[in-house]
Amino acid sequence: MSKSVESTSLTKVANYRVVFADCDPMRIVYYGSYFRMFEIGRAELFRSLGHAFPDYIERGLYLAVLGTSARYHRPARYDDIVDIYAGVASVGRARLQVRYEIKAADGTLLVSGTTDHAILDDDGRPQRMPQEIRDSFG
Amino acid sequence: MSKSVESTSLTKVANYRVVFADCDPMRIVYYGSYFRMFEIGRAELFRSLGHAFPDYIERGLYLAVLGTSARYHRPARYDDIVDIYAGVASVGRARLQVRYEIKAADGTLLVSGTTDHAILDDDGRPQRMPQEIRDSFG
Amino acid sequence: MSKSVESTSLTKVANYRVVFADCDPMRIVYYGSYFRMFEIGRAELFRSLGHAFPDYIERGLYLAVLGTSARYHRPARYDDIVDIYAGVASVGRARLQVRYEIKAADGTLLVSGTTDHAILDDDGRPQRMPQEIRDSFG
Amino acid sequence: MSKSVESTSLTKVANYRVVFADCDPMRIVYYGSYFRMFEIGRAELFRSLGHAFPDYIERGLYLAVLGTSARYHRPARYDDIVDIYAGVASVGRARLQVRYEIKAADGTLLVSGTTDHAILDDDGRPQRMPQEIRDSFG
Repeated sequence: MSKSVESTSLTKVANYRVVFADCDPMRIVYYGSYFRMFEIGRAELFRSLGHAFPDYIERGLYLAVLGTSARYHRPARYDDIVDIYAGVASVGRARLQVRYEIKAADGTLLVSGTTDHAILDDDGRPQRMPQEIRDSFG
Repeated sequence: MSKSVESTSLTKVANYRVVFADCDPMRIVYYGSYFRMFEIGRAELFRSLGHAFPDYIERGLYLAVLGTSARYHRPARYDDIVDIYAGVASVGRARLQVRYEIKAADGTLLVSGTTDHAILDDDGRPQRMPQEIRDSFG
Repeated sequence: MSKSVESTSLTKVANYRVVFADCDPMRIVYYGSYFRMFEIGRAELFRSLGHAFPDYIERGLYLAVLGTSARYHRPARYDDIVDIYAGVASVGRARLQVRYEIKAADGTLLVSGTTDHAILDDDGRPQRMPQEIRDSFG
Repeated sequence: MSKSVESTSLTKVANYRVVFADCDPMRIVYYGSYFRMFEIGRAELFRSLGHAFPDYIERGLYLAVLGTSARYHRPARYDDIVDIYAGVASVGRARLQVRYEIKAADGTLLVSGTTDHAILDDDGRPQRMPQEIRDSFG
């Protein structure tokens, strides 16, 4: 059973400077480019708690993405520095959910989102959530 | 008010060959790469009904993305040819939702998702949904 | 020693529809996006001669990129359909060079370029160029 | 006439953490992903000298890319932090060239490259190189 983390508190885990490669002809960040920021957010969130992903990959464990969602409140633009917030919203025996917020330097909410994950081994078979991850986030 | 299209039927609008650029170190398509396929799906869906996006852009109208979601059922891999299905799920005075399915050649569902849209002008101001779009999809 | 193919003839191997994801705030294709088109060109060139890359990957062989170059003559824009031309410019015992041209529908040259390759095994060690590749392109 | 800068000295202008989105099924950074790092390098190089690109864009001036080249010496991998070095190699009345090196944390050269540029206005017409840029780099 998944244990929901009441009123998930998100932590500022990284900032990110928008480049031309992220933007589109509307002169705003392309909707698909925010998933790179979510990835950075989740990697830095886990690293900050002592769970750097490369340590898991070395043990043959991957945090596979089962699903994602994003709401675009306001656009980020070329050369903006945005703040990436992330937090674990729930963690269970086999799954966890991460929540994200991308904010402008002045705190304005630009994008919010979620990713749902399972732990898989190198062959794509679901694994139990490592206890140290449950301990950190449960 | 948004008129929901009952039991949206999705149409095969394009196929897509997965390239190295789409994949990640898990040797599957990166979760963020599917939003490119959704974009292709929605462009071809609208084109097939006589509403090519460049015609709207010429009039200063953009189909901005308000939100998106994706569920990853099974991974696509390098060099796979996948089929992109798309359909309009609902259309209202100012908004519409598109639904997508990405399927393997044998029909296996790989990814499903949605995008929510508003029509904006060049300055980012919301516009009424053009009548010809409401007529096509309503 | 590398055998140069005199006056390399390039073959039209694919076409490609430019999407928003490829473009930047100048409203043209981002300079880095053409390397995806080069990848498509090289995969389809090899496939057309019976050397599909997945067959090599299955044998643990990768066509690693040692270098690349591109000249941008004219920009491609959103929704353009461009033609991808590719040809092997030279092939040696351990290396080969591929040349590319990206052309507009009316034949206008947009981008030209090259990639230099070595065959590596799964561990990144250089391998002899497979004889069937030398036979096809030599 | 272009004035070549003798023995261009490159400056460390940024570092960059490699993400999954940058990598490919060989489990190394995709050859096309380095052009994003070159872009970061050139933006930070110009910013460090008081020529932030957004100031030019506001005046309707873009540093268009005429050509690029890259040599891949050794691969960068997931989660590596690499250093981005950049310097202006030559500057003329209408053109300039930037050189790059991407290095591992221990100083190992991973990738070297160049980009050639012209200043264009919003309509894509070539413009004279602004004097303050010639003064900074000439």
